[in-house]
Amino acid sequence: MFTSEIPDIIVGRLPLYLRALINMANEGKEITSSQELGENLGISSAQIRKDLSQYGEFGKQGTGYNISFLIDQLKRILHVDRLWDVVLIGAGDLGHAVANYGGFIDRGFRIVVVYDNDPEKVGKPIGNFLVRDASFMEDEIRTRNLKVAMLAVPASAAQAVTDTLIQSGVEAILCYAPTFLQVPDGVRIQYIDPVLHLQHMTYYVS
Amino acid sequence: MFTSEIPDIIVGRLPLYLRALINMANEGKEITSSQELGENLGISSAQIRKDLSQYGEFGKQGTGYNISFLIDQLKRILHVDRLWDVVLIGAGDLGHAVANYGGFIDRGFRIVVVYDNDPEKVGKPIGNFLVRDASFMEDEIRTRNLKVAMLAVPASAAQAVTDTLIQSGVEAILCYAPTFLQVPDGVRIQYIDPVLHLQHMTYYVS
Repeated sequence: MFTSEIPDIIVGRLPLYLRALINMANEGKEITSSQELGENLGISSAQIRKDLSQYGEFGKQGTGYNISFLIDQLKRILHVDRLWDVVLIGAGDLGHAVANYGGFIDRGFRIVVVYDNDPEKVGKPIGNFLVRDASFMEDEIRTRNLKVAMLAVPASAAQAVTDTLIQSGVEAILCYAPTFLQVPDGVRIQYIDPVLHLQHMTYYVS
Repeated sequence: MFTSEIPDIIVGRLPLYLRALINMANEGKEITSSQELGENLGISSAQIRKDLSQYGEFGKQGTGYNISFLIDQLKRILHVDRLWDVVLIGAGDLGHAVANYGGFIDRGFRIVVVYDNDPEKVGKPIGNFLVRDASFMEDEIRTRNLKVAMLAVPASAAQAVTDTLIQSGVEAILCYAPTFLQVPDGVRIQYIDPVLHLQHMTYYVS
């Protein structure tokens, strides 16, 4: 199994499959099919079968997928059969929202520290923590071996903070700042900007 | 110009171009090129030229793009040369975060009303509003002719709320609930689920 050769667009669909399967399990279902999964996701059943077949044989024609088994396999493949400690940078409104979001912990991620460089914010409570001074960031991230970061700083500060995170050993960054960042090969970055989605949709609304 | 025939994947890149151009304008730049835009976005210059050429001639070979002109054109194409009134459903932690996010107003969107069905939340302040009772939602959205909604309700409630929004005339929904929703043709829906992005990245981190 040479996972590095599997196209990233396929990898990107695996978390969707995992989420749908967990929702099904929460409803008490035990078995599903690629047809049913597809209807729940707006993805063709053929695509789902093809995507999953990259990683092995998870179901049999006619008997479907065992949901809890497939959940375990997808968690293993996505490396969320563990809990990732996450560093959050930025303790403004957006940082507070991210720190208070309850949806991370049972899906593989736990914020363990929050940094900001604003003396007004350092030492104040956020989520379950006190905001720490960003000048400690580089050393502490390296010492704690944190690999995953969320970025909730202004766009103008995002590249400099990103450079520091990468120097500290961070390999995956979820960027909430509305900007595009340069990162070296080997570092993963993804973006969340709700306005891009809204503008994409209003194109079609007159 | 038959905009309905332009592939959606091209439409989806236009908000990225607009955001990059506005960032450039804010830095005092007046002219740019598809090369420079591409470097700022990780998109090839050929792709950018091809995408923009779907909508007309916005620049000349050798002289580049006038940034403020191209901003105006993209705003017009995306229908954000106006301010959209937006309805927000859900006044929990996530709804508060969305309501307090400062990044909507100068990019074409303004939340004008927030609904929740929890008697504990109705009447309480959120952003600049008091939360309204969700039982008024259908009538008020129709009366105010609101076309754009943001959904910050639990996944289990999201489909029922979506059905009500669509009955009320909403045509574009940004869903923050971690689930997939069924909508009829002619209604646009997009999703924000930070965990999907995180799990996509941890696939590559060991």
